[in-house]
Amino acid sequence: MDNFQFYSPTEFIFGKETEYSCGAYVKKYGGTKVLIHYGGGSAVRSGLIDRVTASLEREEIPYVLLGGVQPNPRDTKVYEGIELCRRENVDFILSVGGGSCIDSAKGIACGVPYEGDFWDFYCGKQVEKALPIGTVLTIAAAGSEGSTGSVITKEEGMLKRDTCSDLLRPRFSILNPALTESLPAYQTACGATDIMAHVLERYFTNTTEVEITDRLCEAVLLTMVKEAPRVIADPHNYQARANIMWAGTIAHNDVVGVGRSQDWNSHGIEHELSGLYDCAHGAGLAVVMPAWMEFVYKHNIMRFAQMATRVWGCEMNFEDPAVTAREGIRAFRRFLASIGMPINFEQLGAKEADIPVLVEKFGLGEEGRTGGFVSLSSEDVAEILHIAAHASADKEIAE
Amino acid sequence: MDNFQFYSPTEFIFGKETEYSCGAYVKKYGGTKVLIHYGGGSAVRSGLIDRVTASLEREEIPYVLLGGVQPNPRDTKVYEGIELCRRENVDFILSVGGGSCIDSAKGIACGVPYEGDFWDFYCGKQVEKALPIGTVLTIAAAGSEGSTGSVITKEEGMLKRDTCSDLLRPRFSILNPALTESLPAYQTACGATDIMAHVLERYFTNTTEVEITDRLCEAVLLTMVKEAPRVIADPHNYQARANIMWAGTIAHNDVVGVGRSQDWNSHGIEHELSGLYDCAHGAGLAVVMPAWMEFVYKHNIMRFAQMATRVWGCEMNFEDPAVTAREGIRAFRRFLASIGMPINFEQLGAKEADIPVLVEKFGLGEEGRTGGFVSLSSEDVAEILHIAAHASADKEIAE
Repeated sequence: MDNFQFYSPTEFIFGKETEYSCGAYVKKYGGTKVLIHYGGGSAVRSGLIDRVTASLEREEIPYVLLGGVQPNPRDTKVYEGIELCRRENVDFILSVGGGSCIDSAKGIACGVPYEGDFWDFYCGKQVEKALPIGTVLTIAAAGSEGSTGSVITKEEGMLKRDTCSDLLRPRFSILNPALTESLPAYQTACGATDIMAHVLERYFTNTTEVEITDRLCEAVLLTMVKEAPRVIADPHNYQARANIMWAGTIAHNDVVGVGRSQDWNSHGIEHELSGLYDCAHGAGLAVVMPAWMEFVYKHNIMRFAQMATRVWGCEMNFEDPAVTAREGIRAFRRFLASIGMPINFEQLGAKEADIPVLVEKFGLGEEGRTGGFVSLSSEDVAEILHIAAHASADKEIAE
Repeated sequence: MDNFQFYSPTEFIFGKETEYSCGAYVKKYGGTKVLIHYGGGSAVRSGLIDRVTASLEREEIPYVLLGGVQPNPRDTKVYEGIELCRRENVDFILSVGGGSCIDSAKGIACGVPYEGDFWDFYCGKQVEKALPIGTVLTIAAAGSEGSTGSVITKEEGMLKRDTCSDLLRPRFSILNPALTESLPAYQTACGATDIMAHVLERYFTNTTEVEITDRLCEAVLLTMVKEAPRVIADPHNYQARANIMWAGTIAHNDVVGVGRSQDWNSHGIEHELSGLYDCAHGAGLAVVMPAWMEFVYKHNIMRFAQMATRVWGCEMNFEDPAVTAREGIRAFRRFLASIGMPINFEQLGAKEADIPVLVEKFGLGEEGRTGGFVSLSSEDVAEILHIAAHASADKEIAE
């Protein structure tokens, strides 16, 4: 196990009807003028925005509203928010929506007190100051409600980039699983895939002797394997939604990833897919992640065999553990297909002919390599994308 | 899953040589005059106190020292600390030791700004104000480094009582597994038992549909099953110590216990044992907890069968799940014996003749009942203690 720092100070308020208390929590954390930041019309139509504004009014906290955050949130909306917050002297941002909405709020939060362009923080500059954020979560997926991270897409060129800072961790997050019940099955499954990917990108590590975090990772994955199909079958299953929602937070506040090297290459490759095609992040991950696994599994067959046996219930093949490793990858892909995820380019709406463009956008150039479990070159990324392009649930994985 | 609030703002700094930075963290969290609170001479002899004071001196932070905290920490030491802090205008308490030391520091922390007797907080009064605390942990066991709780023993009558408050959560905790390497095997095993008990008292719940926290509980238990024997076999196994140390924190900051009813009756019963005999808390738990399981398992046989199969690797007996449930309890007790824990009264140094005294101290009276997984009367507590008195690793568990 490596040395680490772990700091997750967000206060989580979890359960039915918890959104009614959001005004009190804004007050507790010092907000006196609030930006309510939200996505599409569903938060308005469902009455959620009304409940949020009523809660703020009960606490006599003034607010302004800014809706229209898109999936794969754009820099243009962040600029709009920054201007609005400055004009209205906003000192607290309340995100009402899913990960896109929270990520956009985080972009605004670090942009408001900064004289330069907020995009600097998405190009490597460290955040030094940010407005406090609270969230009312409506989608279990991104984990942004308890994480340091934010991903924003620059509209010009559809460039997707991220930033990380403890200053961007929400002060509080209100998690009411019932708010996710109106989500269509496809988006629910995209969220479940994102949650599992957050765990898996921590699971595949070169750090040895990390039993506690291995087991915690497997705990979240096993929960998803049980609960995701239940919620696809019955979108109003509150209990399954509740288990998935807390799993989604745990998956990404890093409690399951401390003290070990991690590998975020699948996320990185996916960002180019959703950047180019504007597809759902989870859907892109369902296509990329098993392909990445096929490409890298020989690097540590026993780790893949561990996933296969502990998470997917495969029988260990003691004579040839690689067989078990491949069975685990197949089981993962079959699971994704079973909850309605695309698993190849055609199903995603991507084109194999675009692979050179995707690889170029990934930005390694001719000589560059990524870090991670297995270091990748541009050629490797192209190979992973070719595997992804032709994947199917039934195909045996190449030895 | 029940509604819940989860708030764990402690900053954890984990790994080798991390104690060298304690001065910087005291500064970060606003300490300008520090009480260094520690236990016996081992922290002095090992040079740890020197490293801590040197770190404070580098940051030019003045300090006073108060050692001598005993296992099962006493109210008398807390009073001494309160007086010293007031006299010296201390505004930050740094605990250097194990759970007893942290619990004593928490007692002092809430006592200093309070006009009345700090013991009020251990008799049900809510803490409203407390000095900030930091910890340098030397024993993986109590989880007090990331928890709201503190347990203090009133010397007069050896009464063991506890308190809970978010205000008592340490601001930071420095966890260097290497500092636990000097711990004798017996104390290491006591710590491991305490960690497992913290999980098990959350695991046995009447709340249904809690797959995520069930799986997280099992993750910690499985880690302990692997790592505890390794560290008993080789006290200098840093990696095993590291896994146990982080497991110990996770086990008790409530991340594995949110959203579900819990059962702390074994802890409560044990407090009377260590109160009366001044035995190690973990040793008392090793005697009480399997006996409690024997007494209650019929209340939910499938939950015990789940523990047996998922944690102890027992084969599920589908014709008679109670067989599996009992096998799991036996496996737990055998495991405790294998790491050198006492599992009956004789081994603990307790006397069956004292059971009426223990039951009376437990304080239910003739009519009272506890809450929990199974509600207990005084008679039930006596029965559990009688089972504990005669337990052995080989004996079949009564049907």
